[in-house]
Amino acid sequence: MKRIFINCKLVDMHADVTDSAGYQVKENSMIEVVNGVVHAVGTDLKISDHDVVDLNHHLVTPGFIDCHTHLVFAGNRANEFEQRLNGVPYQTIAQQGGGILSTVNATRHADESTLIDLAIPRAKALMRDGVTTIEIKSGYGLTLEDELKMLRAAKGLERTLPINVKTTFLGAHAVPPEFKHRADDYIAYVCDEMIPAVASEKLADAVDIFCESIAFSLPQTQHVFECALQHGLNIKGHTEQLCHMGGSELAARMGALSVDHIEYIDLDGVKALAKHGTVATLLPGAFYFLRETQAPPISLLREHGVPMAVSTDFNPGTSPFASLTMMMNMASTLFGLTPKENLYGVTKHAAMALGLQQKGQIAAGFDADFSVWDVDSPAALSYQLGLSPLVTRILNGNVIEGGLPHAN
Amino acid sequence: MKRIFINCKLVDMHADVTDSAGYQVKENSMIEVVNGVVHAVGTDLKISDHDVVDLNHHLVTPGFIDCHTHLVFAGNRANEFEQRLNGVPYQTIAQQGGGILSTVNATRHADESTLIDLAIPRAKALMRDGVTTIEIKSGYGLTLEDELKMLRAAKGLERTLPINVKTTFLGAHAVPPEFKHRADDYIAYVCDEMIPAVASEKLADAVDIFCESIAFSLPQTQHVFECALQHGLNIKGHTEQLCHMGGSELAARMGALSVDHIEYIDLDGVKALAKHGTVATLLPGAFYFLRETQAPPISLLREHGVPMAVSTDFNPGTSPFASLTMMMNMASTLFGLTPKENLYGVTKHAAMALGLQQKGQIAAGFDADFSVWDVDSPAALSYQLGLSPLVTRILNGNVIEGGLPHAN
Ligand SMILES: [Zn+2]
Ligand SMILES: [Zn+2]
Repeated sequence: MKRIFINCKLVDMHADVTDSAGYQVKENSMIEVVNGVVHAVGTDLKISDHDVVDLNHHLVTPGFIDCHTHLVFAGNRANEFEQRLNGVPYQTIAQQGGGILSTVNATRHADESTLIDLAIPRAKALMRDGVTTIEIKSGYGLTLEDELKMLRAAKGLERTLPINVKTTFLGAHAVPPEFKHRADDYIAYVCDEMIPAVASEKLADAVDIFCESIAFSLPQTQHVFECALQHGLNIKGHTEQLCHMGGSELAARMGALSVDHIEYIDLDGVKALAKHGTVATLLPGAFYFLRETQAPPISLLREHGVPMAVSTDFNPGTSPFASLTMMMNMASTLFGLTPKENLYGVTKHAAMALGLQQKGQIAAGFDADFSVWDVDSPAALSYQLGLSPLVTRILNGNVIEGGLPHAN
Repeated sequence: MKRIFINCKLVDMHADVTDSAGYQVKENSMIEVVNGVVHAVGTDLKISDHDVVDLNHHLVTPGFIDCHTHLVFAGNRANEFEQRLNGVPYQTIAQQGGGILSTVNATRHADESTLIDLAIPRAKALMRDGVTTIEIKSGYGLTLEDELKMLRAAKGLERTLPINVKTTFLGAHAVPPEFKHRADDYIAYVCDEMIPAVASEKLADAVDIFCESIAFSLPQTQHVFECALQHGLNIKGHTEQLCHMGGSELAARMGALSVDHIEYIDLDGVKALAKHGTVATLLPGAFYFLRETQAPPISLLREHGVPMAVSTDFNPGTSPFASLTMMMNMASTLFGLTPKENLYGVTKHAAMALGLQQKGQIAAGFDADFSVWDVDSPAALSYQLGLSPLVTRILNGNVIEGGLPHAN
């Protein structure tokens, strides 16, 4: 299949000469796609036997990648949100079975197809916001069976909707009730039984862990990472969201694709990210929702050339926000990221955070996943919210939403 | 026209007996509408020659009211947003004609129909989010002709889209370049020429002013309010957003419908609001966007029984957010409002802020404006973002969006 997209307003993120905002917007660009992959990009490509699609001078970006979500779960935490605002003490909510364990409980009681049904509107919300690839973590099952069920549901979503899904095993999300006060035993279960099963069933692309004072320790984290690597899986971590523990540095040294949150990362951690090419994934939704005050050290990350991704962290407890452009606005407003950094953060750097070497850019050899926007400039995507400027998404060269004119 | 809505999950905001969250959700409710006005609400209304509409057990709230917007304007401030994030000093941006004056300049150069065209997608975004009534302020014209043009455009929007529009004259938004360093002269122009013209053409329901250290003084505010009242117009104020000046107290004493922002209101101000029945309109979008740290005194407002409204303040400079549910989430997250307070804030109290005695409630005698939602509980509207749970809006008893089944 040969297709050519014409009249694209293309954001060249790698131009030698850029405008003051740091990119070059190229009007009247053409993108040639062969068998779902970009073959050529330019302004005077030859049209021969191509299917021609006119993008009407709309802005065309790489398809957005949401590289950190907990999209698959059952249950509803709106009431808990309401209770907290009504002054019910955290202790009382916990005694009623609230918090993450309420999501674990509901997820355990849901079957795979129910989990898919529940995830569909969340994925569709992200799609309406320009997302073509999404990462989904397990971590609300916390038994072998329920974790595998979550990962199968995530993969089922990919068969159900026009979206690419990458899955991450997050068995080490919390200590389940069955292992209360026996975190080491749970980690042994994760390593000895869960990771081997996940790997042999090829249900996950990477292994993640919540390395935090309220979750798992540094030695436990190292153990999980070692096991993941032995089974040929990539690693990544929820690190230094609430305090400095050295999890980011450990993850980077061990070759992690990304470390996520990192409000409390220190200079050594940042240097380790730079040295090992680990992506810093910023999750401003959780920062906002939890009313955190310590932002990730953006200047330090910039100074050391660490690639920064931006993601929703969509989850029912700390970031119930199914919009990546909202996260871009929060990354700018709360962390000071520039619109250009945001654009990289949801395309090229998000692809790196998932180990996707063929996604996140519009260039020869990359998958033909694009988002098409009715905005004047890339900055508008980080600036205004609510206006839903997405015109359509293009997945492997196929126009997914709406009726764009085919010229022949 | 007699119509009856059946299978409504109704939020009774005035029930004597409520659940722990403060309202009573009544399943299987019916709403009878005669000629666009609610005639009866109950669970066993008689269906005779009514047109019957089945609301499928969805949650039904009063139609949302966005009681403070600057929706009509031309120009784009995304580039200015980007410049600031790229470290361009505020001075430089101002010298380039940035800031509010760039919006004034663009708005002056746009004709009425262009202003309507530009406002349509913004209004549609709010409509998708459940808004049935919107207030729109002038304030980017700052000449008699351009202010009237803005107000006519706002009224034109009401003829173009299925939404109720209330207009507010905000000539005293900023000192225009022609009156630089002559704010008193400009206020005289506002009072002697603009307000009489606005009143005689019946283009506005109320008069607003930006009473602030960087805008207009207390005596100037009083002058504008006196003039508005003389011309039979309601008054309201942008007060105490950035510092305490006493504008809220002044406005309340003079009978203002609402005072808006009020981060720096003091106890005397709060007491004055309570005494005079003035609504406190909270604008968390601007608070968030400007990274303010002093929140409005919510406990004090509660203690004194001041009705609180919540609104977008949609505008290109400080709140480019066309979503009222996002503001509800921000009101909860940043100010601590409960979901119930938010629901009042975008219905009953927002109606009070606009002097609309027939809107904001679902009860006999009120306009039949409803929003219908696919959510389990009212709390979900303040909690999750991006999922677009609106099923449809009902305006004067007519179903506006989507195809709900008519049973006969
Ligand atoms: Zn997470
Ligand atoms: Zn305003």
